[in-house]
Amino acid sequence: MRSQKYVYSFNEGDGSNHYLFGGKGAGLCEMTKIGLPVPPGFVITTEACRNFFEEGQTLSEPLRRQVLEGMRALETATGRRFGQRHHPLLVSVRSGAAVSMPGMMDTILNLGLTQQTLEGLVEETQNERFVWDAYRRFLQLYGKIALNIPADALDHLLEEAKREVNVTQDVELDVSALKKLCDRLIKTIEAHTQTPFHENSWDQLFLAIAAVFNSWMGKRAVDYRKQFNITPDMANGTAVNIVAMVFGNMGVSSATGVAFTRDPATGEDRLFGEYLINAQGEDVVAGIRTPKPIDNLADEMPETYRELQGVRQTLERHYREVQDFEFTIERGKLYVLQTRNGKLNARATVKTSVDMHREGLITKKEALLRVTPEHITQLMHPHIDPKQKPSPLTQGIPAAPGAASGKIVLDPDRAEDLKKRGKDPLILLREETKPEDIHGFFASEGILTLRGGKTSHAAVVARGMGKPCVVGCEDLTINLDTSEIFIGSQKLREGDWLTIDGSSGEVYTGRVPTIEPQMDEDLNTLLRWADETRTLGVRANVDTPEAARKALTLGAEGIGLCRTERMFNAPDRLSIVQEMILADTEEKRRDAIQRLLPFQRSDFKEILKAMEGKPVTVRLLDPPLHEFLPDPESLILEVENLKDFSGTLRALEELPGIIRMLDPSLHEYLPPIERVLKDLGKIKKRREDEAYLQKKEELLKKVKALSEVNPMLGHRGIRLGITYPEIYEMQIQALLEAAAELLKEGIDVRPEIMVPQVCTAQELKWVHRMVEKIHKDVEARFGISVPLHFGTMVEVVRACMRAGRLAEVADFFSFGTNDLTQATFSFSREDAENKFLPLYNERKILQDNPFEVLDQKGVGRLMMITIEWGRRTKPDLTIGICGEHGGHPASIEFCHNIGLTYVSCSVNRLPVARLAAARAKIREVRGKLPEGLDSEYPFVIYF
Amino acid sequence: MRSQKYVYSFNEGDGSNHYLFGGKGAGLCEMTKIGLPVPPGFVITTEACRNFFEEGQTLSEPLRRQVLEGMRALETATGRRFGQRHHPLLVSVRSGAAVSMPGMMDTILNLGLTQQTLEGLVEETQNERFVWDAYRRFLQLYGKIALNIPADALDHLLEEAKREVNVTQDVELDVSALKKLCDRLIKTIEAHTQTPFHENSWDQLFLAIAAVFNSWMGKRAVDYRKQFNITPDMANGTAVNIVAMVFGNMGVSSATGVAFTRDPATGEDRLFGEYLINAQGEDVVAGIRTPKPIDNLADEMPETYRELQGVRQTLERHYREVQDFEFTIERGKLYVLQTRNGKLNARATVKTSVDMHREGLITKKEALLRVTPEHITQLMHPHIDPKQKPSPLTQGIPAAPGAASGKIVLDPDRAEDLKKRGKDPLILLREETKPEDIHGFFASEGILTLRGGKTSHAAVVARGMGKPCVVGCEDLTINLDTSEIFIGSQKLREGDWLTIDGSSGEVYTGRVPTIEPQMDEDLNTLLRWADETRTLGVRANVDTPEAARKALTLGAEGIGLCRTERMFNAPDRLSIVQEMILADTEEKRRDAIQRLLPFQRSDFKEILKAMEGKPVTVRLLDPPLHEFLPDPESLILEVENLKDFSGTLRALEELPGIIRMLDPSLHEYLPPIERVLKDLGKIKKRREDEAYLQKKEELLKKVKALSEVNPMLGHRGIRLGITYPEIYEMQIQALLEAAAELLKEGIDVRPEIMVPQVCTAQELKWVHRMVEKIHKDVEARFGISVPLHFGTMVEVVRACMRAGRLAEVADFFSFGTNDLTQATFSFSREDAENKFLPLYNERKILQDNPFEVLDQKGVGRLMMITIEWGRRTKPDLTIGICGEHGGHPASIEFCHNIGLTYVSCSVNRLPVARLAAARAKIREVRGKLPEGLDSEYPFVIYF
Repeated sequence: MRSQKYVYSFNEGDGSNHYLFGGKGAGLCEMTKIGLPVPPGFVITTEACRNFFEEGQTLSEPLRRQVLEGMRALETATGRRFGQRHHPLLVSVRSGAAVSMPGMMDTILNLGLTQQTLEGLVEETQNERFVWDAYRRFLQLYGKIALNIPADALDHLLEEAKREVNVTQDVELDVSALKKLCDRLIKTIEAHTQTPFHENSWDQLFLAIAAVFNSWMGKRAVDYRKQFNITPDMANGTAVNIVAMVFGNMGVSSATGVAFTRDPATGEDRLFGEYLINAQGEDVVAGIRTPKPIDNLADEMPETYRELQGVRQTLERHYREVQDFEFTIERGKLYVLQTRNGKLNARATVKTSVDMHREGLITKKEALLRVTPEHITQLMHPHIDPKQKPSPLTQGIPAAPGAASGKIVLDPDRAEDLKKRGKDPLILLREETKPEDIHGFFASEGILTLRGGKTSHAAVVARGMGKPCVVGCEDLTINLDTSEIFIGSQKLREGDWLTIDGSSGEVYTGRVPTIEPQMDEDLNTLLRWADETRTLGVRANVDTPEAARKALTLGAEGIGLCRTERMFNAPDRLSIVQEMILADTEEKRRDAIQRLLPFQRSDFKEILKAMEGKPVTVRLLDPPLHEFLPDPESLILEVENLKDFSGTLRALEELPGIIRMLDPSLHEYLPPIERVLKDLGKIKKRREDEAYLQKKEELLKKVKALSEVNPMLGHRGIRLGITYPEIYEMQIQALLEAAAELLKEGIDVRPEIMVPQVCTAQELKWVHRMVEKIHKDVEARFGISVPLHFGTMVEVVRACMRAGRLAEVADFFSFGTNDLTQATFSFSREDAENKFLPLYNERKILQDNPFEVLDQKGVGRLMMITIEWGRRTKPDLTIGICGEHGGHPASIEFCHNIGLTYVSCSVNRLPVARLAAARAKIREVRGKLPEGLDSEYPFVIYF
Repeated sequence: MRSQKYVYSFNEGDGSNHYLFGGKGAGLCEMTKIGLPVPPGFVITTEACRNFFEEGQTLSEPLRRQVLEGMRALETATGRRFGQRHHPLLVSVRSGAAVSMPGMMDTILNLGLTQQTLEGLVEETQNERFVWDAYRRFLQLYGKIALNIPADALDHLLEEAKREVNVTQDVELDVSALKKLCDRLIKTIEAHTQTPFHENSWDQLFLAIAAVFNSWMGKRAVDYRKQFNITPDMANGTAVNIVAMVFGNMGVSSATGVAFTRDPATGEDRLFGEYLINAQGEDVVAGIRTPKPIDNLADEMPETYRELQGVRQTLERHYREVQDFEFTIERGKLYVLQTRNGKLNARATVKTSVDMHREGLITKKEALLRVTPEHITQLMHPHIDPKQKPSPLTQGIPAAPGAASGKIVLDPDRAEDLKKRGKDPLILLREETKPEDIHGFFASEGILTLRGGKTSHAAVVARGMGKPCVVGCEDLTINLDTSEIFIGSQKLREGDWLTIDGSSGEVYTGRVPTIEPQMDEDLNTLLRWADETRTLGVRANVDTPEAARKALTLGAEGIGLCRTERMFNAPDRLSIVQEMILADTEEKRRDAIQRLLPFQRSDFKEILKAMEGKPVTVRLLDPPLHEFLPDPESLILEVENLKDFSGTLRALEELPGIIRMLDPSLHEYLPPIERVLKDLGKIKKRREDEAYLQKKEELLKKVKALSEVNPMLGHRGIRLGITYPEIYEMQIQALLEAAAELLKEGIDVRPEIMVPQVCTAQELKWVHRMVEKIHKDVEARFGISVPLHFGTMVEVVRACMRAGRLAEVADFFSFGTNDLTQATFSFSREDAENKFLPLYNERKILQDNPFEVLDQKGVGRLMMITIEWGRRTKPDLTIGICGEHGGHPASIEFCHNIGLTYVSCSVNRLPVARLAAARAKIREVRGKLPEGLDSEYPFVIYF
């Protein structure tokens, strides 16, 4: 039998050793150490817990002896005696593991109360009701926790007691009712344990300690650890805290409350919280009485309020983080019972982190690590105004960020229909969604489901579309027959307004005001620090001058991707583009293209001007031409209808004449003339212009000729550029002329040309020759030197394999990880997200959706190969990323670690990217492979 | 001025030094050395040619001196004097570079003849006509080649001379006509050169030598070298051969002929050739007189015939390869003028190679290197019977192997139409083809185009479809208005029979008998030697028992790919498969699947049995389910037609009643009742069964739900297996039960299960668990141990990146290079081959079609990474390839070099693969990177 130290008084324990003392115990020790008014007590270590199981679930002699000594010390500290009638010592027994496991185990209060000691306490407090109430609480908790009696069997007696005296609240029970209740509780306990009730406090104490230890191996706790992957190196056994009881319900000079050291909703630097006079902690939670705002305490107990302000200061100075703490005032004396890091919303996190750095509490790096990219994401989406936030109706799992209000719709077909006809926004509410519901997603502002998790179909698809989504809202039920939705007793109907917050998972009835994202001063400050810290560049994916200007305000250092096809899609240009595609001679095609040139030039000019002094990477046309033509299905139907039923038409054409000629008495045998005329009109209209049919047929022929089996892998990007060189020539000319004109005006421009879908060095060289020729020509015509960088997208796997060759002609690479991910997985994004990815995530075949989270082991590996081979040819090669992953925090960290020059992301991800880049820099470990990559691979990593 | 040796007599020259002496010169030296009766002569080296250009296109003094010495030696050897009246020495001056450049330069004959020397020659030969004819030939050649006079200007005089004496053949010109002609030739030459004609033989000789040198830098030669990529390290300058003239036209004891040492069409071991008595070499070619078969010479000149047999033997013993040689008999004396390796057809190549090994002339390895995979390819396609082969109509570029006969069709629409209606095969004949002609390809047996090369659209698409194709047949013209085809004066019409040979490029009128491919004894012998030599395994891609049996006869060592979807497509099963897909409950789906099980089991049983003792790799279901459903376009139209025009229908329904009721005098105003009834019937039939419409609508809905934007990257392979596990369960069970039943019967079976489209190790582990469970279950039920290998396709790029992990669970990898190529290039094969690949090949952006020729630099690189990482985990990992590249010779060589275990190819590629694998083994260079791979990449190669 080892004779180790298992018991530490709060004065002795090392507050930083959570593993040994558990989170709660360490906190109590720490608070004691920094002089906060913690009730006296001691911790039994997690080691004692492990020893308990090694010894066959028995408390060892040394442990019992040390507990005894601990209790003796407690008696000395409090001037009370455990189990003694006069000034009895009451304690609470609380579990506490190294990792918080909420709801795993409960606390036993008022241990030390017996029929005998309660008499002494009554004498001491002169408050018989308080004492008997304390005793019945003890009996309930002790019975349930230490003796394993089903909670219902005991709680039921409390309900019965209230019924008998015809009251509804616990506090309305008088002393005699409480005495009777205690008597029944004891009888029930005895009935369950089949033995007389122990009234020895020491026995009860040891039984309670053993019960807490045992709860560590209880099914609930084991499941929880499995679910959250809590391994023995994180927490191994629970500690037990024995704390002297203090009471906030000992009269009007007593109180209990909870407080934050700063406002958790706004981050304001003031004490924030609420309290109840003459109450116990659980009364605050129970919501029977409405707690008062903490400021009121300044009037009710000015001295204690000042003490609390002191506690706040001490806590923050010590923990350097906003604290959420519990306190009790027992007859004027303040006790702090617990503290933990406060859960703040995004805005408050930003503000308190910036403020705390200014106050000298934390460093800039700490501030940057404290605010997570997810916080910024929340701020960059519409969110519920925290000042006007009502109580949520319910809460589900937050699956796609942002808030949205709309009318409930329960069916995707109906959603599509309503969307077409109505103006009100919609929220699609379903038990769960399936691939065939996809049109309902398009029609709605947000999605709410009753089932599913973060990787369910609804979640994956909504994130893909950037629509707010809450899933797994399991306390809702839908009655599809009546179109009613129930939550508890509340009823909603299809068409009622609902608001969902996909960042928090909260659901509200009605239209709750949302705040559009905006950058406040604190956020700007934080991001300035991020900019000072990070070494990874941050650019934006931008297609319009307006977006360019917005990107600048959000801190973009350039444009990493300017898609030129968006410019082709504008209504005034699409008809010219179609003309170009349908041209049957090169001459006609060139003519149409030349008419597009001025549009592109002026677009480029505006964007280059807006980004003065910063690089603008223009990607040459990428999508296949059929994307600019109408969809074949509707064309097929139209042509078919135009051609069909020629015999019927002729018959119908003659019918009205006949009807008019006939004796009216015969009319009843004929169809009404109006109907015939209507049908006829419908058909004739379609046929009257033979040329129209012919045109449609030709268009259909072209659409079919251009249509592709796998457009993702089709005739697009550079392949198009090589087949129809005049398109790229026009785009290059437009860009360089725009640049030249601006340079003439004295504006500093930095155009970059980027080629999409490159798979061989020959392709890139082909475009490079074209660029060089036009570049020289424009420079000669304008008599000015135009700076220009030339580079390639790396979005085709073969380009990765040929990186060494591509770098011979490219000034820069830019990873197009959207396409690269598709090609690496052989997943078509549209097909995958809608068909099998959710199942893959659910079954843990893939941890994430690789289109959201960069797949480091596959795509990332290809990127590493590319970087290594590319820089072997050209050591100073600029390498960026312009896929969606460029705005995803973990992916940005990976990009930093593998040595990318910059990330380029959508405009509203810029703040996230700036922060994530800074955090990556702070956390980088040089010489180590990025997390998650198997170390067996023999790659040299650039860091 | 260097004083080097530029001139070598045929006795001196090193016959193996083609670079210095040119091909012809080296051959003459070599033949002299081995004692063949070569006329005396000498070679002026290619170095002299280079020197000629360095010296500003002048013949250096040392060269002139050495030529003089050479001529003196020639005079001694022949007993004749150059430029002297008595016994004049005549020589030929011939060019000859290290690489054959046909048609680049001509030969000057009879140099040394002047007005003066020809008199001496007349005296000597007593044959005035012979001498004047020799003189006019000299004048023509010398004028054209040495003096650059346009050939027409001289040839025209010959035509004029024949016209004047009213004869049609050169030989009919008598002495006086020839004299007049020579006179005119000289006058014309003088008119062009503006100087009197040189009659000094020495001047003529040096001028001729300089002319030959100059021809090296002539436009024709420079273009030729560029076209065929002949670089200076291959040939640098031309040699000049000066050879004493011998004459086959000196009377009936003289003759000239060409011969092969073996029959070039059959490979038979006998002298083969033809000859003409009293003729010159060009007369054989000119076709004025019909040459006699060489066997006749045995009667006409028995002595010389024996000598020729000796020559044949000497040549073969020396060159160890079939020779194609020219000979002349001058007054009974045999001279060999030239020899080169004979061009044999495929069958003759195989036979002679096998025979020569048996005769001890060559080693097995040499035999295996001599027969190329292209030879085998020709033998494995239908080919024109060499014994019945008529003269071809014309010849184009062979673009896709095999022979086909059919009726000419000039338009793809018409081809489609004829195919639907008629039974006769078709040959599509077009100027060139375009993507929109693709339906014409499907309808035809072969394709013939007037324009384009081996990488034109027609060539690429035809190869993809495996149809014979000849392109670039430029001497054909088409008149589309009259549907006539012209070649010279010959006319063909659309509908006429035509035969094309895509292996040779030859085109024949009519139906030429073709031979179906078959394995003869020689080929089998050669392939047995290949099997002894190669270390790379060869398996077949086979889906049916019949194919399995055929594969065995062609030498398959197992089945590397058995596609199970083919079994689903059989008519008796497709309806069950559709039932399975359309099932709305898992129960119904499982029910349909269970009905498929017996089919699959019996298929597997037959195949396993046929391949007794050899591995059979079964690939679980790969294609997306919508491939088993009807195409959506036709369904859309059908549903639309069923739904439309309901008003019209009602109107029409009443119309016949009306018409019948009316006074017949009114009938003329109405549409004929028959027409109305017909239209009505058409519509009603479609609508009469509402359930039919509903069923179609449901089907359409399902088809649409399953349809995919990019099916190549869609819901298929393992993704399907995970979504609908019951399908894979059934297939695995069917295979293992089939194996168990056979084992019970005492048959040795080696089943292997292969999973398609794998991209993560988790997927593979998922199927592996399924396989293990069913495996155990089957073994228990049958009470027998069933051997089983489990592996994965590597056809998704990510699988390459995760090879290390996949190898933990896989016994084998099999590269699916069809899909892998698509994913690596981001090219959809169907879209690429039809849309932009031909242009890519034409512009040399890609050298080959990567779907035919394995792309070593991209896809090959990925394969090397995969092999390295896979074998790092499991050193004895079996790795194969089952993409089409597994049957492509250069790709097979690459597979051997990077360490693959086996290739698996289509059945009729098996012989090619066996030979290619053997050749790869013979040629392998250990420790060297495969050709074409940049050496900068840091991969360890397994060889």
